[in-house]
Amino acid sequence: MRPLDPLQAAEGFSLPGGIMTQLDHQLEIYDTTLRDGSQQEGISLTVSDKLRIAGLLDSLGVSYIEGGWPGALPKDDEFFVKARKELDLRNATLVAFGSTRRPRTGVAEDPQLGALLDAETEVICIVGKSWDYHVTGALRTDLDEGVRMVAESVEFLRAHDRRVFFDAEHFFDGFSANPDYAMSVLGAADASGAERLVLCDTNGGNLPEDILFALDGVTATLPFESLGVHLHNDAGTAVAGSLAAARAGVRQIQGCVNGYGERTGNADLCSVIPDLVLKLDQPVVTEDQLSKLFSLSHHIAEVVNISLDPHRPYVGTSSFTHKAGLHTSAIARRPDAYEHIPPEVVGNHTRMVVSEQAGRASILNKTAELGLEIDDDLARQVLERVKEKEQVGFHYEAADGSFELLVRRMTGWQQDFFHLESYRVHIERRSGEPVSAEATVKVRVGDRRHVTTGEGVGPVHALDGALRQALVTAYPEIEGMRLSDYRVRVIESSDGTGATVRVLIETSDSNGSWGTIGVHENVIDASWEALTEGVVVGLLRIRPQEI
Amino acid sequence: MRPLDPLQAAEGFSLPGGIMTQLDHQLEIYDTTLRDGSQQEGISLTVSDKLRIAGLLDSLGVSYIEGGWPGALPKDDEFFVKARKELDLRNATLVAFGSTRRPRTGVAEDPQLGALLDAETEVICIVGKSWDYHVTGALRTDLDEGVRMVAESVEFLRAHDRRVFFDAEHFFDGFSANPDYAMSVLGAADASGAERLVLCDTNGGNLPEDILFALDGVTATLPFESLGVHLHNDAGTAVAGSLAAARAGVRQIQGCVNGYGERTGNADLCSVIPDLVLKLDQPVVTEDQLSKLFSLSHHIAEVVNISLDPHRPYVGTSSFTHKAGLHTSAIARRPDAYEHIPPEVVGNHTRMVVSEQAGRASILNKTAELGLEIDDDLARQVLERVKEKEQVGFHYEAADGSFELLVRRMTGWQQDFFHLESYRVHIERRSGEPVSAEATVKVRVGDRRHVTTGEGVGPVHALDGALRQALVTAYPEIEGMRLSDYRVRVIESSDGTGATVRVLIETSDSNGSWGTIGVHENVIDASWEALTEGVVVGLLRIRPQEI
Repeated sequence: MRPLDPLQAAEGFSLPGGIMTQLDHQLEIYDTTLRDGSQQEGISLTVSDKLRIAGLLDSLGVSYIEGGWPGALPKDDEFFVKARKELDLRNATLVAFGSTRRPRTGVAEDPQLGALLDAETEVICIVGKSWDYHVTGALRTDLDEGVRMVAESVEFLRAHDRRVFFDAEHFFDGFSANPDYAMSVLGAADASGAERLVLCDTNGGNLPEDILFALDGVTATLPFESLGVHLHNDAGTAVAGSLAAARAGVRQIQGCVNGYGERTGNADLCSVIPDLVLKLDQPVVTEDQLSKLFSLSHHIAEVVNISLDPHRPYVGTSSFTHKAGLHTSAIARRPDAYEHIPPEVVGNHTRMVVSEQAGRASILNKTAELGLEIDDDLARQVLERVKEKEQVGFHYEAADGSFELLVRRMTGWQQDFFHLESYRVHIERRSGEPVSAEATVKVRVGDRRHVTTGEGVGPVHALDGALRQALVTAYPEIEGMRLSDYRVRVIESSDGTGATVRVLIETSDSNGSWGTIGVHENVIDASWEALTEGVVVGLLRIRPQEI
Repeated sequence: MRPLDPLQAAEGFSLPGGIMTQLDHQLEIYDTTLRDGSQQEGISLTVSDKLRIAGLLDSLGVSYIEGGWPGALPKDDEFFVKARKELDLRNATLVAFGSTRRPRTGVAEDPQLGALLDAETEVICIVGKSWDYHVTGALRTDLDEGVRMVAESVEFLRAHDRRVFFDAEHFFDGFSANPDYAMSVLGAADASGAERLVLCDTNGGNLPEDILFALDGVTATLPFESLGVHLHNDAGTAVAGSLAAARAGVRQIQGCVNGYGERTGNADLCSVIPDLVLKLDQPVVTEDQLSKLFSLSHHIAEVVNISLDPHRPYVGTSSFTHKAGLHTSAIARRPDAYEHIPPEVVGNHTRMVVSEQAGRASILNKTAELGLEIDDDLARQVLERVKEKEQVGFHYEAADGSFELLVRRMTGWQQDFFHLESYRVHIERRSGEPVSAEATVKVRVGDRRHVTTGEGVGPVHALDGALRQALVTAYPEIEGMRLSDYRVRVIESSDGTGATVRVLIETSDSNGSWGTIGVHENVIDASWEALTEGVVVGLLRIRPQEI
């Protein structure tokens, strides 16, 4: 049994300000990851990154993809040129973003409006100021000119046969400060032919009820069908505000994948989309598209190269992870007891983690998952050992390979693939020359002793090379394995370089991937531990051994 | 001018289900970081961690601190013993958490209820099941026994003079599925003397309107004054749901610092508290206490040893950071133009970052902050250089020390404190022996050549030691500098160990701290770059040099 359909629970609701729930319109999702999302501290996208992300967004089924700001960033000009040639969008319409014309400049003389036309998109979204103070204080012009800037820019783009969306910057703050002015700006955009009027919470501090209050005012003269919202998460309520606006009846929701964006980010589409589909029964994407959400979120996180918060709703790797003994024993009986949706619906999955908070049940679940059969007594001992190791910095949640070896060793099993005699690494730099790294390992494989040396761009690369060289004769399958991820974390960073480091390595071959861990004060030794365990687990997968 | 008081904007609102906004009651904040928060994947707290966090929470001014689950975790038994001796709480009341008695067991025979009494807290919070399915399916007992378990457990603890709070597990799902049973459980807890009835969204999938819908039902028979909510963030709306419940009139909001908690976490108190105080005018903490929020959030993140998402509302280091050219030039004129609150109110501050998206204005702001005066022309060149360096993996946002050196070098300045001839590092491990690391550096300081060797737990530690030894005679102030943070990030991790790594080092002395960066395929060389720049910046702060 799943929780009741929330729509059913919410039936008959009236929202603040007398706005009735209207969920029968066709909602549009407008993605601005490539423009507003890339304002996030730490994000810097190349043109090919942007093309890749646009392709992914299209496959998710969003209605619009805001591609960038031509004329402001040269990279974005290039993006639109390449997008025309290389992007074959099936679901989404590409949008070029820009600003209204400058104060006291003719539209035809404004280079930025020209650059917007040059992007050759069907839709153009332009942002204009709707907070009176910003017109007089930031633009330093008068309010009438502020309205003309919006009206003339929209007209100009319409005259060039573009569909035009209008982003009303600072709308909610502006509507609070001077509702008449804010409405006159919206009205001018509407009268000039803007197809959507998007109310932006640029500073992000408005709560859902503030959004609804303003919507109530706006819809006194403008229809819901032309409205959209663009919310930022500064008060931690951008998702809820977007849902409230959707329920109220707006047509378009703007946001970013993984909640990227300046400051605290934009409304997270990876929450908004599944909430709309699963909780509010709004089919903004299809079932099949929704099932790609997890993979899309992680793929884009990889492209922007920022590790994804594992606790993100729906798409986090921990979002359906169970750790507490109470939960894991119950969930083993009935998985829906502690999950609000079946995680597969968004492409995620239930995970059990092994930790000191786990009970025996979690250990037994995990070992069963790994194909190891152990009895209750051993499970109890494994639990104790895990607690001891986690005390000194190990962490098996992301290192199932190392967990498997720990369990195996506790049954008396020992790896016999190879035995280390010694390794050494030498790194040297002379002024003006490139740095060199060289590693020598001495290992025994069966009766044979191998002494091999590897060079590499860095010490771990060199060690990896030397080890592979030593093992490849006996285990040719090692050629198919590769180090697919290498992460270093200082776990007591207050001690500086004398701190303990934890190295997590992911090794993969054509059959899958597995994580291993090493913990040591010396980053090289921690890496060595994770590296060798990665190889042992890989060999075990090809040459299974009973315990 | 700040945005209008949101309360004013919201005046006259009626919330769904006819619940009127009631903001005149005394709201309580109940923190469960130490119990439910520590269920988060990756968190493992020692007893002294818990004592430290409890002290910090008390200084924030929360009403209740849930300390742990005595009888379930030995560490938690120890925590309550030590808390009695060592914790001197000024604002908060410590709470022990546990479960109702087991099915078909007398309360006096239930060891867990005994352990709760042994914790000797004034308040005990017990959790019981309010979703009928969980009683029959997970507890495997009948519904009447489910109600008796709650009633008798509350009575038992009341008979021992404890104040009792009751957590109704899965309340919202239970209320949807079988409202009569859910209400009979709540009613039993109430009749048996529970002071608070806390409605828990255990699976976390309920939207704010679902919370309000249930509250409307519950308050038909039970007063708002006895109610609390405990929400999880699985739909991304836990903060908004908590605020909606507070506006509706509940007495107690439960949550965790930094949104810690199982899966997607609990309602983030670092958003809920400032939202209540600043947006809804609810003085749940004082102005002075609120100004400690940023520092408390980061301090606790350090204790739990999980780096804090820089984009967290209010407390993230990027929450008031401006990067876009549009924003930075405007904010230089009027800081409140792009900030929803003055960041100082929560102890945070406005930051400008330098990046390829920055304009000249951001560069000039940043150099002024660093005390370097440069002209427009040079600012333009610096911007170009920053873009080039960021292209290959540098990132100056967290490395203002390295940014300063970059600007200085572009004026023709060169550091003359020391010159590297060469360094080398040797790491060796022989089977059965501890790993050794040794570094030799050859540097010139003025006319003198120094060849020094350092040993260390790892290669960077050894290099740091050797470099200091070489410099200390000429620059004795180096003794006062220490490496306070060392972070390694693989920035193209798909290439495994051959990828580029970015090392960020924080160096501090008694006057402050500064960040430096190194990027290289070799982790040792990247570390060396960041290490030496850290020393140069430190020396410059003590021996200023004009540019």
